[in-house]
Amino acid sequence: MPHKLLRVHRADAMGAAGRRPVMIAIAGDSAAGKTTITSGLLRALGPDRCVAVCVDDYHRYDRDERRDLPFTALHPDCNHVDIMEQHLQLLATGHPVLKPVYDHHTGKLTRPEYVQPREFVIVEGLLPLHTKLMAACFDVTVFLNPPEEIRRDWKIRRDTTQRGYSRDQVLSELGRRETESAAFIRPQRQRADIVVRFAHVEQRRDPPGTPLSAEIVLRPTVRHPDLSTMLADSGQPMHLKLSRDEDGRPVDTLHVHGYVPREDSHMLEKAIWAQLGTDTGLPCYLGELDGGRRSEPLAITQLLLLYHMLEAAR
Amino acid sequence: MPHKLLRVHRADAMGAAGRRPVMIAIAGDSAAGKTTITSGLLRALGPDRCVAVCVDDYHRYDRDERRDLPFTALHPDCNHVDIMEQHLQLLATGHPVLKPVYDHHTGKLTRPEYVQPREFVIVEGLLPLHTKLMAACFDVTVFLNPPEEIRRDWKIRRDTTQRGYSRDQVLSELGRRETESAAFIRPQRQRADIVVRFAHVEQRRDPPGTPLSAEIVLRPTVRHPDLSTMLADSGQPMHLKLSRDEDGRPVDTLHVHGYVPREDSHMLEKAIWAQLGTDTGLPCYLGELDGGRRSEPLAITQLLLLYHMLEAAR
Repeated sequence: MPHKLLRVHRADAMGAAGRRPVMIAIAGDSAAGKTTITSGLLRALGPDRCVAVCVDDYHRYDRDERRDLPFTALHPDCNHVDIMEQHLQLLATGHPVLKPVYDHHTGKLTRPEYVQPREFVIVEGLLPLHTKLMAACFDVTVFLNPPEEIRRDWKIRRDTTQRGYSRDQVLSELGRRETESAAFIRPQRQRADIVVRFAHVEQRRDPPGTPLSAEIVLRPTVRHPDLSTMLADSGQPMHLKLSRDEDGRPVDTLHVHGYVPREDSHMLEKAIWAQLGTDTGLPCYLGELDGGRRSEPLAITQLLLLYHMLEAAR
Repeated sequence: MPHKLLRVHRADAMGAAGRRPVMIAIAGDSAAGKTTITSGLLRALGPDRCVAVCVDDYHRYDRDERRDLPFTALHPDCNHVDIMEQHLQLLATGHPVLKPVYDHHTGKLTRPEYVQPREFVIVEGLLPLHTKLMAACFDVTVFLNPPEEIRRDWKIRRDTTQRGYSRDQVLSELGRRETESAAFIRPQRQRADIVVRFAHVEQRRDPPGTPLSAEIVLRPTVRHPDLSTMLADSGQPMHLKLSRDEDGRPVDTLHVHGYVPREDSHMLEKAIWAQLGTDTGLPCYLGELDGGRRSEPLAITQLLLLYHMLEAAR
């Protein structure tokens, strides 16, 4: 035990102010699926190459203190935004940080954690793209944007099973947070290179248990793998469509339907991976949901993000 | 209560990356008198102008974890020295930090504390001058160097009354720490502009209750107030003496004996203060010991440090 502590410490000290890591942001509202996306990326790259940081730990107030405040944990004033900016800049330039830790079970702020950037740093949370300076720390930025009714179901399931809240408490909290979601969380979509929306396909009645489909907006702010020739047919369960984003800017949108057969999605994965020009095989552990279920749209989404992380590392 | 929290937060956010503060380091071994010196400076300047940071909060391990380690809390490997360096640089350039907090009662690391630099930042602790980079963050550096038998008495008194240890535990801990004191704490004396030693005057038998005398080494690494003409007579209870430091370098040493009359020390205080060319009167709250007692040598020491802080701020 002591010897392990010592080894870790010495390795860390030597690594201080080392190579600049590749930084990816995964932003989105509470229970939008950030952890599911992140854990697949973490497992695919492994803990030696990749570390994840959650910026929701930068709460300025603990649960008791928040009770009397006129805003929720979503509000920038409820978070140490200046320290988030500072720590993201430090990590982006290869420096370690002493990251605060918020305990979701007790609602208390507790012992901080020493984080040394590795080759890849995944930063997920409610507000990682809140300021221009934060957004500028990243090589790739992602915003998760599920329909509100799906996010509500996800939040009820997680908060009642893992965080000790009742269904009514979660619903009331969602109501309390709505104004701040609109004011602070959703505007971050504009700063994302990639916007991911897991949803049911409208006007389709898939059998129960079919995974959600993904609609992946690929903004031309980063260079995406070229999929235009292979996915041109809009009748297929996977296709790419040139369109305009909400604000009129041109974007590609990749659609991956939940019922896509594994063989088809595997072909797309190989095509994306081939464009990296790497010798290593396709990463494992992509597309895994709770309870051992699998989702092809999730696997494609995670692979696209991995593509960007590895491309930025070259 | 919520309104006060909000006010504090807004003021802090506005002050972020503000003016560069004056930074003073007060280094020394455990129970060397750092808190006594610091609290006088803090009270004299007031909380609006001055904030104190203790670098002993940067422990890498809590008390339980340290139990199995082959070194004590004094060892640099037992502390986040890289984060100390980072935070001192941030404070010195006017940025806030989220400082870790070590609870001396429980021996646990706990909720960190947001620290915004003010006009003056006092950094005290075991290792604030351990690296060149840390030492370079300061305008003035001080090392406290009491004789070991006096420090032992102070440590026994403090740790048995305020930290829940027995006398035997304190003595055994002092033994365990001796090698590391010699290796890491005492060498910081070399990086100090001012070295302060409170001690009994040898070959004198002062009545019980006489405060300790101070021997204040003034290195020519900073510009001290000119006291040479007024304190030339070595027969007096306060005098300045040109001599050589341990390593042969020339230094002035100011002696202030514990029995010096209040009127004499007051004259010296006025002479020091006059050299600042300020309109404000002499600061209050200097020279205060526990239990309402007063020490002229302590008052003079604190006034000298205040002189340097205000001089650096001009």
